[in-house]
Order: sequence, then C-alpha cells, then structure tokens
Amino acid sequence: MEHAQQVNPFDYIIFGATGDLTMRKLLPAFYNKLRLGQIPEEARIIGTSRTDLDKAGYIERANEALERFIPDETKSPELIERFLKMLNYITLDGTKSDSDWAGLHTILAESPKDRIRVFYFATAPQLFGAISENLSKNDLITSHSRVVLEKPIGTNLDTANAINNGVGQFFPENQIYRIDHYIGKETVQNVLALRFANPIINAVWSSEYIESVQITAAETVGVEGRASYYDTSGALRDMIQNHLLQVLCFVAMEKPESLEADTVRNAKVAVLKALRPITDKNIASDTVRAQYTAGTVGGNNVPGYVDELGHTSNTETYAAVRAWVDTPRWKDVPFYIRTAKRSAEKVSEIVIQFRAEASTLFGKPPASNRLVIRIQPHEGLDLRLNVKNPALDTFTLRTAELDAPLLIEGQPFPDSYERLLLDAVRGNPILFIRRDEVESAWRWAEPILTGWSENKAPMETYSAGSHGPAKAEAMLASNGDKWHENME
Amino acid sequence: MEHAQQVNPFDYIIFGATGDLTMRKLLPAFYNKLRLGQIPEEARIIGTSRTDLDKAGYIERANEALERFIPDETKSPELIERFLKMLNYITLDGTKSDSDWAGLHTILAESPKDRIRVFYFATAPQLFGAISENLSKNDLITSHSRVVLEKPIGTNLDTANAINNGVGQFFPENQIYRIDHYIGKETVQNVLALRFANPIINAVWSSEYIESVQITAAETVGVEGRASYYDTSGALRDMIQNHLLQVLCFVAMEKPESLEADTVRNAKVAVLKALRPITDKNIASDTVRAQYTAGTVGGNNVPGYVDELGHTSNTETYAAVRAWVDTPRWKDVPFYIRTAKRSAEKVSEIVIQFRAEASTLFGKPPASNRLVIRIQPHEGLDLRLNVKNPALDTFTLRTAELDAPLLIEGQPFPDSYERLLLDAVRGNPILFIRRDEVESAWRWAEPILTGWSENKAPMETYSAGSHGPAKAEAMLASNGDKWHENME
Repeated sequence: MEHAQQVNPFDYIIFGATGDLTMRKLLPAFYNKLRLGQIPEEARIIGTSRTDLDKAGYIERANEALERFIPDETKSPELIERFLKMLNYITLDGTKSDSDWAGLHTILAESPKDRIRVFYFATAPQLFGAISENLSKNDLITSHSRVVLEKPIGTNLDTANAINNGVGQFFPENQIYRIDHYIGKETVQNVLALRFANPIINAVWSSEYIESVQITAAETVGVEGRASYYDTSGALRDMIQNHLLQVLCFVAMEKPESLEADTVRNAKVAVLKALRPITDKNIASDTVRAQYTAGTVGGNNVPGYVDELGHTSNTETYAAVRAWVDTPRWKDVPFYIRTAKRSAEKVSEIVIQFRAEASTLFGKPPASNRLVIRIQPHEGLDLRLNVKNPALDTFTLRTAELDAPLLIEGQPFPDSYERLLLDAVRGNPILFIRRDEVESAWRWAEPILTGWSENKAPMETYSAGSHGPAKAEAMLASNGDKWHENME
Repeated sequence: MEHAQQVNPFDYIIFGATGDLTMRKLLPAFYNKLRLGQIPEEARIIGTSRTDLDKAGYIERANEALERFIPDETKSPELIERFLKMLNYITLDGTKSDSDWAGLHTILAESPKDRIRVFYFATAPQLFGAISENLSKNDLITSHSRVVLEKPIGTNLDTANAINNGVGQFFPENQIYRIDHYIGKETVQNVLALRFANPIINAVWSSEYIESVQITAAETVGVEGRASYYDTSGALRDMIQNHLLQVLCFVAMEKPESLEADTVRNAKVAVLKALRPITDKNIASDTVRAQYTAGTVGGNNVPGYVDELGHTSNTETYAAVRAWVDTPRWKDVPFYIRTAKRSAEKVSEIVIQFRAEASTLFGKPPASNRLVIRIQPHEGLDLRLNVKNPALDTFTLRTAELDAPLLIEGQPFPDSYERLLLDAVRGNPILFIRRDEVESAWRWAEPILTGWSENKAPMETYSAGSHGPAKAEAMLASNGDKWHENME
C-alpha cells in the first residue's frame, strides 16, 4: 500500500500538551498517521504540562479533541481507542528543575535505550532554553533524541539568538528541528517538484522569462481574541519573516544537487543571503504597512484593529514588501510579498508573472503568461496561455486558463503537521529551518521592523474586507505591475 | 458585436454546385456566415453544374441540404429564406466551350464591374484547366476575381503541375486559392497562436526541449462506398501529402515576421524544403504502409479492405512516416506522421513529447512533459506536468494533466470551410496553399509512393479497430518512442 511507510518506534514528549496547538493540530495529525499505518504499535506520545492531570484525565481531553478536530470521514472508534492507548501524561513544569523529572524519566526508561525520542516544545519560545537545560540535567537527551521547536523563534535577531543559544547549549544543531508548518504544506513543497521535475517549467524559471513574482497570504479573520498578543508581533513577524520568506526560498533557490536536507537548506540560505537589504533609503518606497479600519467582511460589519485592541498601536495588520534577490537568475525581478488580516478573501498563493510577448504578430500584444500556484484554498495550478479566438476570422487571441487541481480525488491533503511530525522521527530535517536560515531571515527583516518602529514608513489604513491600502497598489504600479486578486 | 466583420459584396460561382461537397459543406458554411452577419445583403451564390435544373429547382435542393446539414440550434426559417434568395443557378458544363457561358455572363453582368468574383472549383481536378480556359475565353475573369481549387491537386508532382499549369495559364498565382480544409480548422491555426503568443511555449519549442513530435489523423470509418475511388489514392495521398504536412509546417516553421500571407507561406515552404528526402535507402525503415483486415470497430464486425474492394490491391489504408526537418531548430527530432482508416478511434492530434528530465533529484526520472493539441474531437490542450505526490511523505512525483478546452462555451467552433470561403472574398490567402508548397510537398511524398509501388517497403496488415500494424510500433520503438493512444 502506497501509504505504509511506517516509521521506527518512537517516544514523542510534548511540552505544552494541554495547549491549543497540541489539541487542534498535533494529536489529530498523529491520529491520521496512525490511520495511514505509518505509526508502529509501540510508539508513545507523552504529554507534559503544568496542568495537574493524571493519564486518564489527559486521555479524556485528547478524546474530546479528536472528536472535535478529526473530520467524520476519517473517524473510527476502533482507531481512536488504539490511538488513546498510545498516550501518557505527566504533570511537569519544564522550566523548573525541581519538577517531576523523575516521573518522566521513569516513563521513558520503559522503552529500549535506542528508542527514538522527540521532544516537542509547544510552549512559549522563551521557555525553550530552560526546558532544554532540565532535559540535559536529568539525562534525558540521548543520541537518538531530537527537539522540535515551535515558532516564533524570537522577535528579532537578538532574541532569536538567545533562544537558539539556549537550546543549542544542550542539543547539537543536527538534533534541532525548527518547525515552519508553511513548508509542511504540500503545495509549497510542490514548487520544488514543479521546478525541478519539469524541464519545460525549469526552462522559463528565470528573469529571462519571469517579470515578477507575487507571494500572498491573506486572511479574512481579524485578530479577535488574540489582539493583545498580536499587537506584540504584527504581520511582518507573524507571516513574512518566517513563512513567506520560506516560500520565497522555494521559488528562488538554485537547483540543489540532491534532496539531502543540508543541500536543500544551503540553497535556501543562499537565497536569504542574496535578499537586497531594506535600508532607511528605500524603506518608504519598498515597504507598506497598514492597519485595518472598520469595514465589511463576508457581509458582516467588523470593527477596526485599534477598536478591537482598545488603544492606539504601531503594529501592522498588513505588510507588503518589494524584495529583490540579487542573484543572476533573478536580476531585475521584483518579489512582491504581502500578508493581511481582514482581507477581502482567504488566499495563499504564488503568482509567477511571465514577461509579455514582445512581438506584435497578432496586432496588439497578447496577455502575459501567468502561473498561479494556489497554496490554499483549492490547492492547484492555473496556467494562463493565449490561444486563437475562434469567434473571429482575423487572427486574434483570447486567454485560456489551464487548471490542475492538486488534490487526488477522494484523498484529503495531509495537514502540514502530519509530515513534519514524522519527519522528526525519521531524522529528516529537510523541511525544518536551520539556524542560519533563521538568522539570515532576521537580518533582512529586522531593519524593516526597526525602520517602522521609527516611523520611517507611514502607517497606512485599509478597510476591513478590502485588498489592502492604496499605497500597496501604488508600489506595484511604479513597476507597471498589479497585485493578482481572485475576487475583484 | 464581435462577429460582425462583414465582407464586401461578392458573387460566388460554384462549379460542381449539385455535388456532395457543395451541399454538405459549402452551403451550410455560407448560411452560418450569413447568420453571423458577415455576408452583405447584395452577395450572390451562383451554382453551376451539368445537372439540368432551373433556379427554383436548385433552391429546392439547397433548402433540403440546409434542412439536413444545419444543426437545429442555428436553424431559422427567416434566415433560410434570406439565404435562399442569395442563390442562383445555371446549367453549364464548365469544360465545354459551347456550353451556356452567355447565361453565366448575363447573371454576372447584373453586378457592378468591380464586384468581387470567386470561382469555386468543386469538380474533379482534371477539369480545372478546361474550366479556367472557358472562363478566360468568355471574359469572365476580372481583376477582382479569385479561383478556389479543391483538392486533390494531382496525384504526383507531374499531375499537380499539369493542374497548376492549366489554371495558371488563365489566373495569376495571387488569384489562385488552393484550399486545404485542415488548416481551416481552428485548432490547427491555434498552433501559431500557441507558439508565437506565449513566450513560455516558444521558449521550449525546439530540439533542446522537444524529443519528438507526433501528428495523427485516424478515422474509425473504412472506405465503404468510396472503395474504388480510394483505391486510386491511398492514405499517403489522401491525408499526409496535403493535410498532415500542412500541420507539420505549422508546428515546425520559424516565426514569421508578420501574418502577411506570403510571409507565412514562405516560412511553411522553408519547412517543406527542409524535409529530409525518403529514398530507397530508408523507405523500408522510415515508412510503414498497411491495409486493414476484417475486425471489430465500435463493437461491430467489419470486413477488410480487400474484401470491400473485391480484388487485391497495392493501396494503403494506413501510412506512417518518420520524417525529419533538417533545420537547426529540429536537429535530431523525429516527426512521426500517421493516418489510418478503420482505426481504434477517431482522433486528430499533435503530440509534443518533451525531453525527459535528466536529473534524478526525485529518485527515478520523472515522466516527460507532454503537450497534446487535440484537433478533433474535443478541441483543446493537455499539458502533462509532474507534481508532488501528496499521498507520500517522501518526495515522490505523480503526473497532473492541465486541460484547456478550446471551445468557448455556447459557441460552436466554426466549420473549417466557413473561414476559408470568406477569406477568398477578403483576398486573404494566408490559409491557402501556394503553388510552391504543393510542389515541395509532392517532391517529398512522391518518392515514397514510387518506392511503395515498387514494393520497397512491404504492405503490412492491421485488424480493423486496432491502432495499426506492429511495424509502426517498432519504428518508434527503435528511437525509444511510443505512439500516443488515447484509448489503450
């Protein structure tokens, strides 16, 4: 069976095991992998958190979470029962050396010594160092251990370094798996397949044929209950510095010699290092930040960001950057990156805008070719070609859209966490972020944040439910470009 | 309105006006153009043939033909009435100088002197010269005249020259419109749009990316009532020397400087002249001819060709050629051309097989990219790309087909005659065959026919309802290639 790539037995120890991420994403992802036959009988998931619960209590919570977050098609009482048997729990404050480490030790000692051990830190990142230290002190880090770090890795280069140093004191880099669920997405990984398994795509993947690239991640939701947290982060930190730069790396990287993890990550780092710095000179022209004001989303009136927050703020809910990758392949090709809360539509996509046909063989110049890689929703590809207009005798053109859905019928796309969770077991870090990637990304992003904090680019506004501020349109218009909108 | 490109008033004089082609194709095509507003009020269609009929009798026949051959969606009593008013008829033997030329003269004299006059020769080609001579003798050829010649223009270079000389004595080449309804097909013309209006297609349209080209025109029908005529022609003359070589020209030509008719035809002639000659040395390896034997087509038992004919024959009902276009663009790219009667399916298509990806980044080499241009049925494009297989965690590939129908919804494709009929009125010969094209095509095709008549390639057989003889498979297999079949 195509699915049955069973991993080796493992003990997965989750810190933050009662939290939202664990309940909503991690447990359902494990369940699905069990369902697909990829998790062996002996595997265990050991939850830990400060919440005072016993094993039975945790299993009850887990059961409720599965009920709620697993789609009915894949729900099976028998499988759920099997899954719950994999669970264990220990009340533990990972940051405290006098917590119940002995209890965790006892549980882990039940497994053979060479059992794969994955520590998953689903807690606040400033706790990662302390937890690592306690794991080390209690001799829980074996040569078969890995640690998975949830985002955000810092809020700037310094805090990222602090986190990485805190963990790095106790785990060597090759045991550290920094997760970015965006590259767990099939359609993002698919960029590599598209580029490097299709000679006719690879042939046109450069500035010779590509005029611009757009990377968009927009949501219709606002900050809602998360306003006070969100206000400490903002759109650039939340989406661009990590997720969208990763997407950019996949689009822009040179062909790696192999799919060996470090070979691929070297190629990505090369892109991040080639990003032209945003400085005080160009921050006002090459970046746009904005906050949503009251508006209408999906027919409902919604308040503005500042109203939700209850006070004024210098935090952006929309960010757009005109980035340049200074490599020969991407000479003079702008990469437009944007992300928004309370946008007109929920969409993540990559738009490859090809150069216009120069000749006027058919009278007026034909529409430019365009490839849209839809990350979500409706994962797929749209390729715009010019064809003859059959309605007219003269040789005129119309555009045709070639459309490929990427879903296989009857087979739901795996959630991005599914693959990543087991890749950590497999010891395959290809889709995890290496330390130098984090650092390079911050080196490029931090000057933007600093400039913004010094108001070197004005804070714009946009109505909730719109496509963003006028200044973002103007930024593209200055290159003769235009944002790709699905709904207009 | 997009359709309303009305041509100038014209008199269309059809020789062979009671024949099958006129009734089945020409009159319905004129009707449709009238319906679309492209034919002006004053236009006239004047039928001539040896059949003794008066105008009313001809209109009656025409009315029956429209009833039969126009689809219900476009049938309108009011339009049919308007159409029939355009018709006139005169009994005339075009080959006889003592026929009723005065009658035709009188009818044509009713129009202004500068009226566009199109003579359409829908008769046996050996009559073209005599008709032309009589038109000339009777002063019916004006400077605003054109003559449309139906196929076949000869059965070899000599007979083609005889026909062209016969007409050419009385009409200058720029007034001669040799029709090939295959290039009247939208999807064939669309090859030019695809190649020259899409930089990303144009970029890969050469031997650097293309491994082979297949051009197929297969029918499920046999020769039926036409057996004795067909036996004088055969598959190569019937389909390859004319239609499929024209398709090959569109696929292989260099980009013309303009869509001016002679610029395009110069580019096509250059392809025909670059065709590598088939000689006695390679005729056995690079051509395959065959006759169908009894078999099953669409669930019905059908007899073999020789049984239908009633005697043995050296005429092929299947022909396949491995052709080479000796230009830098097509270095080492075989063009596989084939046509068949009594094939497994009715299909006309162009298959662009791209070279395989050389790298093994994804383990085993990915499937080659492929573009299928469907000429008929289901006019459209299929592009095969490799994408990531979402079912598997490891980086493996599957193929995705991007599909673009070329029909515009609710708008039937124009029949290939529709555009051609009015292009002759417009004086636009871009889709008509110039004399040097006919000659170049025969120069390449005739040695094959000669070699076959001398049995330098054996006559193969294939079962009716199959994809053709085994030897045709073997011919491609020797290059590591395989015919593209939709039904297998």
